[in-house]
Amino acid sequence: MSVDSLETGPRTPGIATRGETVPTVPPAETAAPRTAVDVSALLERGRTLATPVLRSAVDRLAPPMDTVAAYHFGWIDAQGNPADGDGGKAVRPALALLSAEAAGRAPEVGVPGAVAVELVHNFSLLHDDLMDGDEQRRHRDTVWKVHGPAQAILVGDALFALANEVLLEIGTVEAGRATRRLTTATRALIDGQAQDISYEHRERVTVAECLEMEGNKTGALLACASSIGAVLGGADDATADTLEKYGYHLGLAFQAVDDLLGIWGDPEATGKQTWSDLRQRKKSLPVVAALAAGGEASERLGELLAEDAKSSDFENFSEEEFAARAALIEEAGGREWTAQEARRQHAIAIEALDAVRMPQEVRDRFTALADFVVVRKR
Amino acid sequence: MSVDSLETGPRTPGIATRGETVPTVPPAETAAPRTAVDVSALLERGRTLATPVLRSAVDRLAPPMDTVAAYHFGWIDAQGNPADGDGGKAVRPALALLSAEAAGRAPEVGVPGAVAVELVHNFSLLHDDLMDGDEQRRHRDTVWKVHGPAQAILVGDALFALANEVLLEIGTVEAGRATRRLTTATRALIDGQAQDISYEHRERVTVAECLEMEGNKTGALLACASSIGAVLGGADDATADTLEKYGYHLGLAFQAVDDLLGIWGDPEATGKQTWSDLRQRKKSLPVVAALAAGGEASERLGELLAEDAKSSDFENFSEEEFAARAALIEEAGGREWTAQEARRQHAIAIEALDAVRMPQEVRDRFTALADFVVVRKR
Repeated sequence: MSVDSLETGPRTPGIATRGETVPTVPPAETAAPRTAVDVSALLERGRTLATPVLRSAVDRLAPPMDTVAAYHFGWIDAQGNPADGDGGKAVRPALALLSAEAAGRAPEVGVPGAVAVELVHNFSLLHDDLMDGDEQRRHRDTVWKVHGPAQAILVGDALFALANEVLLEIGTVEAGRATRRLTTATRALIDGQAQDISYEHRERVTVAECLEMEGNKTGALLACASSIGAVLGGADDATADTLEKYGYHLGLAFQAVDDLLGIWGDPEATGKQTWSDLRQRKKSLPVVAALAAGGEASERLGELLAEDAKSSDFENFSEEEFAARAALIEEAGGREWTAQEARRQHAIAIEALDAVRMPQEVRDRFTALADFVVVRKR
Repeated sequence: MSVDSLETGPRTPGIATRGETVPTVPPAETAAPRTAVDVSALLERGRTLATPVLRSAVDRLAPPMDTVAAYHFGWIDAQGNPADGDGGKAVRPALALLSAEAAGRAPEVGVPGAVAVELVHNFSLLHDDLMDGDEQRRHRDTVWKVHGPAQAILVGDALFALANEVLLEIGTVEAGRATRRLTTATRALIDGQAQDISYEHRERVTVAECLEMEGNKTGALLACASSIGAVLGGADDATADTLEKYGYHLGLAFQAVDDLLGIWGDPEATGKQTWSDLRQRKKSLPVVAALAAGGEASERLGELLAEDAKSSDFENFSEEEFAARAALIEEAGGREWTAQEARRQHAIAIEALDAVRMPQEVRDRFTALADFVVVRKR
């Protein structure tokens, strides 16, 4: 299904998400039954192995950057007291360790890769939150809000540099290759943010443009996370490229689900406001898909969003007004298309694994993580 | 001479700078007469070899980042028309090429290093100008002023990533080592900016703290520039470390001269306002040295600056008021001490070259560049 075949693409019967409060996107059925994988244990393993190394890397920062970074990661609160913050889902570290195993190595081999990817991810969060003016992340005030814009810039820069440091101090050829791949991913991340910013000022964004932007902002770094452990473990470029393909499409699936949660997610679970992405006028997948779909609801939505763009009263819109827009997006097919897109990207990701020879157990874990990404509620 | 021996350190007779309009700091005489070196040709060679590679690297950036970067580098004006802007003195590229020659290689071997160092330098300028709220650089409006804060952050990030990309795509072990050294320098750069920001909020900064900050902000990247070509050319760590030592102390000499120019520089030459650093309340070397010196002028200066810190009228101070502060700094010995410090750091830099075996011609060029750095007027 091409990105333009919104109207003609195959529909998987029985997986309609319309009308659900929380959009879950069950994975398409696969031919072979999978071994039961404990995804929580997999995520926990990533956290357990990576977090101490991440913390000691962050400890290298000169004051006050170490404190600001510790606040960002949720290890301390704004007053400097120890906190047990929400460090995120930790999908990336889990993938990095798994990718070391895909190369037949111990998961520990992937740890510096997991840490480097987390550092780059958090560098981008610090800078993006400032550029986007976002005041909240993971249920807490963002760094620029608490410590000021200069610290958000500076600590972001420091985390980026630290990511390279953590890899390059290994001193091997493999570490050089891993850093090169991380650099490519970081460049894509920055390209994606540039696109995101420029799209904000445009009235219309195509589905293809939106997917390209999301591939850059989310796909590239998940691609790197899914291969970096293998690269550190000595895997060849073909293997790394294939694992990157898995991660890239997983990232697109991840982002499609994020876009669904950004509109229809449960605020209790996501930590965001209701209709969060609509309030921010985000041209996310459900929106651009609905606008591209054509038909009555699509046209009405287009008119409404064009009016909203000029409205001086947008900030004071009621719950009902946002709910009306969400309903139009759904009626135009944007919600269903996005759920379908998540499944489509999920399937491509799983299929990519066929090209890499790895223990069945490791493959099952990659698959289970992909399943988790599309059924999650936060 | 330790940094604390302001009052007791040796004085070089006949090189007093007091009373000069533009502070030149002639280098201390050396034992052996030097071969005449054409410094302009050396700087021009760096520009000629590095600029096309730098431009093609910047061309890789996605729009609008390529345009914003081209504006920053002075290749186009704010309207997008071609410009022939002041790209700076180009000391760093010249050093990078020279360091390849120090390792017995062709200067071209140092080009990716020169480009990477320039990219990191300009990444830091973009972010620092925004953090510091500086509106002018090289006689032009800064990027955040013309293109907004988000573009300054984003393009800075992109240049940083590009620096790593340019080196790592070489794909050799040497390139990995060069990237590691560049990363270390970048971390120091960021530490220095963090110190600079924190010192702004403090009433007193010691001479040692100021030197440490300047070593981080200026010394570390000049150290990297002075060794990166050698590293790319296969030099061992001991050689690279020694060249770094030359560059680090050259950086401190460079910064001491910059601090003199920041107060007593000719606005026509520097492109800055008169008494520029005083207007910005910068705790630069002449200021901290004057405050540390003790004595009547030093105490009077301390009282005056403490009053200024509380003054609501500081923005409207007249030329005379700044001139009076500059005169007190000079009377307390801050100007002379800083000129002396420039010579001292210059001498350490030159001396470091003794530990590296290199063609006499190359050595003479390193020396000539060091001489240039301390006698420059902008």
